[in-house]
Amino acid sequence: MNETMVCVVGNVATRPVYRETVSGPSARFRIAVTARYWDREKNSWADGHTNFFTVWANRQLATNAAASLSVGEPVIVQGRLKVRTETREGQPDWMSADIDAVTVGHDLARGTTAFRRTPRPEL
Amino acid sequence: MNETMVCVVGNVATRPVYRETVSGPSARFRIAVTARYWDREKNSWADGHTNFFTVWANRQLATNAAASLSVGEPVIVQGRLKVRTETREGQPDWMSADIDAVTVGHDLARGTTAFRRTPRPEL
Amino acid sequence: MNETMVCVVGNVATRPVYRETVSGPSARFRIAVTARYWDREKNSWADGHTNFFTVWANRQLATNAAASLSVGEPVIVQGRLKVRTETREGQPDWMSADIDAVTVGHDLARGTTAFRRTPRPEL
Amino acid sequence: MNETMVCVVGNVATRPVYRETVSGPSARFRIAVTARYWDREKNSWADGHTNFFTVWANRQLATNAAASLSVGEPVIVQGRLKVRTETREGQPDWMSADIDAVTVGHDLARGTTAFRRTPRPEL
Repeated sequence: MNETMVCVVGNVATRPVYRETVSGPSARFRIAVTARYWDREKNSWADGHTNFFTVWANRQLATNAAASLSVGEPVIVQGRLKVRTETREGQPDWMSADIDAVTVGHDLARGTTAFRRTPRPEL
Repeated sequence: MNETMVCVVGNVATRPVYRETVSGPSARFRIAVTARYWDREKNSWADGHTNFFTVWANRQLATNAAASLSVGEPVIVQGRLKVRTETREGQPDWMSADIDAVTVGHDLARGTTAFRRTPRPEL
Repeated sequence: MNETMVCVVGNVATRPVYRETVSGPSARFRIAVTARYWDREKNSWADGHTNFFTVWANRQLATNAAASLSVGEPVIVQGRLKVRTETREGQPDWMSADIDAVTVGHDLARGTTAFRRTPRPEL
Repeated sequence: MNETMVCVVGNVATRPVYRETVSGPSARFRIAVTARYWDREKNSWADGHTNFFTVWANRQLATNAAASLSVGEPVIVQGRLKVRTETREGQPDWMSADIDAVTVGHDLARGTTAFRRTPRPEL
């Protein structure tokens, strides 16, 4: 409850890094999300501000994202926004904007996808 | 401005219907979005309410969605929610909940995808 | 999980109806949410599509909303979208678009508010 | 288009700072947004991660927010998320998570509000 949910559309900015952790598969990658606005003077669309996020995926999403995503590909990500702050001795606070992903998918506005379902693990 | 943006994750419920209209390619399909909640008595996840939407796609998204999506596949859709009401003589109002899609993608939590970029049309 | 969360900004369209139910206070009202778009020909903002929702509030939110809201006032509502369908013998399906509100507030872009905190019930 | 819209519910963490700038009124304040989750072991709700944002308001929203909001009050904010990064010589990147507010309102789940409409400026 009261999570900050976000849904962003952007480009994969770094190659997904995959690891097996004690709590299961984990993958992370950076995403660049660039707003677009109508430039009334130039009468055309123009690039606005770019937000960079670190996207974290777990369990089956981690395995499938690492197997499916490459740098530069357009994706849509839904997840929980985590703004993390770290205080370090004698240095300004360090901050990061992360998305704990619920879902990631290729953006069909920019290409086609062939989908292969992952069999559910036997209980 | 002031659009009702939604981001939903669900299953394709009807085969995408594709048409060439005067304003370009158009495709539509139904999506079933089922909420999940933690059943404290059964100590397990259970299905909650299901929302059904008609998803409308235009231009390149229409062409790619029709080429990529099949009934039953898990997808994520971001778009503008349009609740449309129609008054008919001697009948209760007819209503529909539509999503004018900005982006559609396969849900990588449930499978993998091979992505093929659509070349941008020559200007 | 997997709820369809929405955040809408619009005008209170009906006087809030308040009731004491077996599961506590309940209130409901209708809200009109009108999109705005830039009309490039007229070079000005214009009204787009209007979505109507029934907003449902429970517990303290119901009591406070009924005490605070009047028809025509601008509000912001965050909650779970429920598209409900009812099949009736010999008639087309009946449908409604409801929002189970998590939070409601007056829109400070259109006016000011004096806030009075509700004391938490003694445990 | 393609903005990262967010809708957050939290507490005003700093007194709103109001200024008249060349492009009109401006106000900013910090907001603390704490997630809540069900602790299955303690069988009760518990505090999760807290996100801090700087909220920026302009024009009439700035004037009304500065006149209406006090530290500690519960609010709902809808706006565009801007993750801003600044590179400084010999120091780690400096980053901030800002929300360019579209709407701010007191949270009626936690109190009541008396609303006073701001007259529209004569054209």
